[in-house]
Amino acid sequence: MGMIGGGPGAFIGEVHRKAARLDGGIEIVGGAFDIDPKKSKQMGKQLNLDPARVYSDYKEMIAAEQKLPEGERMDFVSVCTPNNCHFPMAKALLEAGFHVMCEKPMTISVAEAEALVQIVKKTKRVFGLMHNYTGYPMVKLARDMVKKGEIGKVRKIVVQYPQGWLATALEKAGNQQASWRTDPKQSGGSGCGGDIGTHAENLAEYITGLKMTHLCAELTTFVKGRKVDDDVNCLVKFNNGARGVLHASQISVGEENNLAIWIYGEKGGLEWHQEHPNYLYVKRMGQPDQIYKRGNPYVAEYSTAAGRTTRLPSGHPEAFIEAMANIYLNFADAVRAGLLKKKPDPLALDFPNVQDGLRGMQFLATLLASAKSSQKWTAFKK
Amino acid sequence: MGMIGGGPGAFIGEVHRKAARLDGGIEIVGGAFDIDPKKSKQMGKQLNLDPARVYSDYKEMIAAEQKLPEGERMDFVSVCTPNNCHFPMAKALLEAGFHVMCEKPMTISVAEAEALVQIVKKTKRVFGLMHNYTGYPMVKLARDMVKKGEIGKVRKIVVQYPQGWLATALEKAGNQQASWRTDPKQSGGSGCGGDIGTHAENLAEYITGLKMTHLCAELTTFVKGRKVDDDVNCLVKFNNGARGVLHASQISVGEENNLAIWIYGEKGGLEWHQEHPNYLYVKRMGQPDQIYKRGNPYVAEYSTAAGRTTRLPSGHPEAFIEAMANIYLNFADAVRAGLLKKKPDPLALDFPNVQDGLRGMQFLATLLASAKSSQKWTAFKK
Amino acid sequence: MGMIGGGPGAFIGEVHRKAARLDGGIEIVGGAFDIDPKKSKQMGKQLNLDPARVYSDYKEMIAAEQKLPEGERMDFVSVCTPNNCHFPMAKALLEAGFHVMCEKPMTISVAEAEALVQIVKKTKRVFGLMHNYTGYPMVKLARDMVKKGEIGKVRKIVVQYPQGWLATALEKAGNQQASWRTDPKQSGGSGCGGDIGTHAENLAEYITGLKMTHLCAELTTFVKGRKVDDDVNCLVKFNNGARGVLHASQISVGEENNLAIWIYGEKGGLEWHQEHPNYLYVKRMGQPDQIYKRGNPYVAEYSTAAGRTTRLPSGHPEAFIEAMANIYLNFADAVRAGLLKKKPDPLALDFPNVQDGLRGMQFLATLLASAKSSQKWTAFKK
Amino acid sequence: MGMIGGGPGAFIGEVHRKAARLDGGIEIVGGAFDIDPKKSKQMGKQLNLDPARVYSDYKEMIAAEQKLPEGERMDFVSVCTPNNCHFPMAKALLEAGFHVMCEKPMTISVAEAEALVQIVKKTKRVFGLMHNYTGYPMVKLARDMVKKGEIGKVRKIVVQYPQGWLATALEKAGNQQASWRTDPKQSGGSGCGGDIGTHAENLAEYITGLKMTHLCAELTTFVKGRKVDDDVNCLVKFNNGARGVLHASQISVGEENNLAIWIYGEKGGLEWHQEHPNYLYVKRMGQPDQIYKRGNPYVAEYSTAAGRTTRLPSGHPEAFIEAMANIYLNFADAVRAGLLKKKPDPLALDFPNVQDGLRGMQFLATLLASAKSSQKWTAFKK
Repeated sequence: MGMIGGGPGAFIGEVHRKAARLDGGIEIVGGAFDIDPKKSKQMGKQLNLDPARVYSDYKEMIAAEQKLPEGERMDFVSVCTPNNCHFPMAKALLEAGFHVMCEKPMTISVAEAEALVQIVKKTKRVFGLMHNYTGYPMVKLARDMVKKGEIGKVRKIVVQYPQGWLATALEKAGNQQASWRTDPKQSGGSGCGGDIGTHAENLAEYITGLKMTHLCAELTTFVKGRKVDDDVNCLVKFNNGARGVLHASQISVGEENNLAIWIYGEKGGLEWHQEHPNYLYVKRMGQPDQIYKRGNPYVAEYSTAAGRTTRLPSGHPEAFIEAMANIYLNFADAVRAGLLKKKPDPLALDFPNVQDGLRGMQFLATLLASAKSSQKWTAFKK
Repeated sequence: MGMIGGGPGAFIGEVHRKAARLDGGIEIVGGAFDIDPKKSKQMGKQLNLDPARVYSDYKEMIAAEQKLPEGERMDFVSVCTPNNCHFPMAKALLEAGFHVMCEKPMTISVAEAEALVQIVKKTKRVFGLMHNYTGYPMVKLARDMVKKGEIGKVRKIVVQYPQGWLATALEKAGNQQASWRTDPKQSGGSGCGGDIGTHAENLAEYITGLKMTHLCAELTTFVKGRKVDDDVNCLVKFNNGARGVLHASQISVGEENNLAIWIYGEKGGLEWHQEHPNYLYVKRMGQPDQIYKRGNPYVAEYSTAAGRTTRLPSGHPEAFIEAMANIYLNFADAVRAGLLKKKPDPLALDFPNVQDGLRGMQFLATLLASAKSSQKWTAFKK
Repeated sequence: MGMIGGGPGAFIGEVHRKAARLDGGIEIVGGAFDIDPKKSKQMGKQLNLDPARVYSDYKEMIAAEQKLPEGERMDFVSVCTPNNCHFPMAKALLEAGFHVMCEKPMTISVAEAEALVQIVKKTKRVFGLMHNYTGYPMVKLARDMVKKGEIGKVRKIVVQYPQGWLATALEKAGNQQASWRTDPKQSGGSGCGGDIGTHAENLAEYITGLKMTHLCAELTTFVKGRKVDDDVNCLVKFNNGARGVLHASQISVGEENNLAIWIYGEKGGLEWHQEHPNYLYVKRMGQPDQIYKRGNPYVAEYSTAAGRTTRLPSGHPEAFIEAMANIYLNFADAVRAGLLKKKPDPLALDFPNVQDGLRGMQFLATLLASAKSSQKWTAFKK
Repeated sequence: MGMIGGGPGAFIGEVHRKAARLDGGIEIVGGAFDIDPKKSKQMGKQLNLDPARVYSDYKEMIAAEQKLPEGERMDFVSVCTPNNCHFPMAKALLEAGFHVMCEKPMTISVAEAEALVQIVKKTKRVFGLMHNYTGYPMVKLARDMVKKGEIGKVRKIVVQYPQGWLATALEKAGNQQASWRTDPKQSGGSGCGGDIGTHAENLAEYITGLKMTHLCAELTTFVKGRKVDDDVNCLVKFNNGARGVLHASQISVGEENNLAIWIYGEKGGLEWHQEHPNYLYVKRMGQPDQIYKRGNPYVAEYSTAAGRTTRLPSGHPEAFIEAMANIYLNFADAVRAGLLKKKPDPLALDFPNVQDGLRGMQFLATLLASAKSSQKWTAFKK
């Protein structure tokens, strides 16, 4: 595995590395870690990498790695840069024959996303998108419960993603994480919507298997001088007639990373909280509530997808890094199958892919269009 | 105290009686408990009332009680009937000189509500509206914290009221509570919006002191054959520029009475859950979260309104009936002050009144108008 | 109903009054509310009582009420005084023909308790003991689940009752509640053990139907100058071979009234917390945890005792006063049955009685004996 | 890093590997993974190790690795075998010049533990003991809060470790984890006490800085035919006069890994739960409760030890593997400092060491002695 981005001071790149390392099946062999070649070298040293494979630039990296014999060059590359770089980097990597793991949102426009879908199709490379929250085993259990009809036809979905860290103008105080996220050029038009709203969308569609068809959105910028939205409130229609509420925020003081979802069907309900990821609350009409707890045999027996992504017995909590590692686990198995010219285990294909990335961009485009519209409902473009 | 409604099988009337009795300052002396005179008698007997004061009809009751000498007749009457009866009964009572405690929603139209405002003004009677959730001490503490600037200028409000009891067509199975609530004639046009959406509206405005100015609402009827909405999703604008999400539901299987609110200001946040009413969660920027617990001296010292409505020390939980008793407590003090020709303690005026009732009807009218509109925002009429 | 104690500034007497009033079946008609006749009169006035029935002294009260014709005199009297007065008052009342509701602990010695058992037997009066925590419906549900074998043979019980309010020498700061509780003459030898340890004992034996046979106790006085223990730690053996831990404290800063119990059987476990009384957590081997919630039909269907003591639907929380009211509810039904010369409904006998009071005194005696012993185990005397 | 144990089907060895890998500073280069050489080879293959460094036996491993030039041989070895092997293996490794990370309990007797202390002293190797729960950042914060006097002098400690997985005779059903733990020869005399009781002891002493001086213990075997205790209940005295309760269980059905601690001082209290490790509950006299949340700047600013062991921002939960990785992080830094002939950062010494291991064995010896004694208190031997 190689990496683009994830240089000194970056947040998510280092988390990718930890997640990729966890299970021992993936080795980081090189990368172009920073736009500043010195910083890239510094990170390479810190990671004990062969200096020859620490590059100043992703183009240089692609060129050099392509020359290495198969089996020695990077099997795949993780793209952990600001949003606006995702497309050109992923494109170049795929066309050069590398499999790609990409941070979300996948691109900064629907057009780019559609182009990437075609490139993936053409190059037949494995493309993974780091919607890490669907890596949690209890999210997979929830999906399987909906699929098997445990709660009946879904009627209502409430999904939220409140954070509070951007309640002040942090981007003017030199915070690197805040700066690029609030720069529309780097983040792609929406701040809160793109950074975390897409996670909410992805989670809701992943678990329910439904597709959003219409949004009624309001994007607000509460912090003076900020160039992008920092708060999203949205009504949603789904393709089976279900209704939903999606709200996300970066100005909700005191909230940390409170992604949570409530799904109500004709027979029951499900509830999951990212900050307490080992539990799935299950409600069945006329019966006591249930708490499904990760690591118990009854979870793995019900959902092989959840069982496959569980490392520790019940009561030994797993968390964020493990969820991300689950995305890598399946992705790497799919890459490995390709390298071995085998058909991958269908369970290994349970990671977000280029279609999910396109979906995220369609969501964002619809969100931005709805926010500008005075009409109540804005339909997703076909 | 007298009562209209609250006959055998009624839910809320008996709760009113318990709440009124709790503190020993109010005595139930008579009533017209049921549209069926026999059932009214039956309830009177069950309550050990003087049979002479158990009436077949509220008009009969008013006529008879009016003839009693002052000091002997009912000081006030509680109206606990389906929504469509509230206005004519309250009107008749007020005009006959009785103080009135009325269930919510106050009327079934803005016009009735406006008329009632005038009648209260003219008759100078005390009028209380049973928005019981604002009777909880921790709600009063929250209001006082916002008022004193503890969380800074309010930016975002999320208020929810999910229930699941009407997830099936209970009204066709002979359930009395379900029947009148889903009959548009008795409930007043909106099902979920009128029954519980108004509580959410009232709670948000009570705590923040803000007023909603625009709604963007979607009302849905999920249960086949139901004549009113059973699910409400709504975006909100407030008069200080704050944004909000309000959602309520009667089809959210597994939810019981999960009214809850999250308020975010520039400096902090507040969170309160009706099902765990003794706790107020306070979030301050850059500091550990705090849990304020009812009954502690630091609560009463900060908020005299919360202290005044606290009966038990901390750790000895108080709940729903006590909250309703708090509305009666203040209301009865106001009535008493009037009887004694004294000015009431300003704290005694902390109960929902006819203006809150009008506000609720304006909310409902705007909700219904918005639900029908294809425009995103519908403004409250001035 | 009459009352001894519960004068101005008293805590528990007023709670008794609220609890007794709640359901409308009990009327407070008089009492001897304070050792100071002026204060007794003051309380009578506050309660709007007939001044003729507000007494200076309980002996005066007994004498006067006895003279009233049957049907007019108090049907029963609640004793809400410091512990050392319970026995002489209850004795006098019973022997004068009154039914008695008594605060706990019932007496200050086993000898007194045994005498009271005999007196109740002889006088055939109804005697209730206010172990209010067993009045909670979910405690009754727990008892019925154990009884029906839902968790199998009980193996282990952990019961705790930590409070923090006596972490400093409040008794020297003029706090009335603290003063009598820390005066060995008024409280009966043990501070924390008698005040709250007995609740823990009662709860454990009530739910499991087991009896403690041996204690290994340590009583500690942490606050300098305090005359009684303020912390209790205790190992327990039960009569079926089960083992237990019982700990209680008045110096656990930050704890309010955190009575809680965990019961583990061969097949499952139960967990209940007084501060969140509407929930019972049920654990079944190899299955998801369950949360039973008060007010649901599945509760009442399983446990008629729980159903009978439920006033509000699920999600409308009930709490401390309602639990106490449940004790009064059943007690008053038993009294009423006696007055009507009927056999009471067996469910009406579900309130703590003189045997429970004796049991509490045996627990306290064993606790104090064990605390003084250097042997590990001290057996309950037969 | 090398490893002894952790072969196919082993639980804790694989967790060690994940924890060691996480941060990228430690590489697994070889090991003797199973008593069965074939299985050891199998594990080596699975880990992509150089077959030459996958050994049949730890003695073979030591001999072979010793021959490798410094810098190429294993810097340290992790011992992940049943308890009875810890001592001979650790001894051999230390005497052969390897640093050692050892699972707990460190040995199966105090004598062995004392011998190991001397061996560590003599060989000057770094010795780490995997008491992983003290690796959690919020445990370190708790320790620092006690140290800085935040809660005043400690008075009472309640520490629990209930599990339910051995509620039936799993050892007879071929469960590998259950088998060795319930075999007194392999586990060292106590089942529940040694496996998890020592964690409770270690946690209590680590956070408070106090030492237990006396125990009053009861060990019970509930499952028929089991050869060791499966339930521990214990009263504790600490060296500053504090009192405690320690209970642990393997038969508490429904409990998973519910290690938790409550510490009460003269001014405040602390509460921490292993299953929700990112939160520390802080109680201050007369003030609202506080929830300290991992990852917030206020945590790192207060406790550099907590800050140093935090990888993710607040709201992005960290869990069990990360806690274990923290032990490895500090341990490896200490090893590295030794390799570089530097003095380690004092913070790097914050990992459990041979003295903690000795302490654990003293605890177990005292626990077993107390369990056999009819006297209430058994003192720790000096």
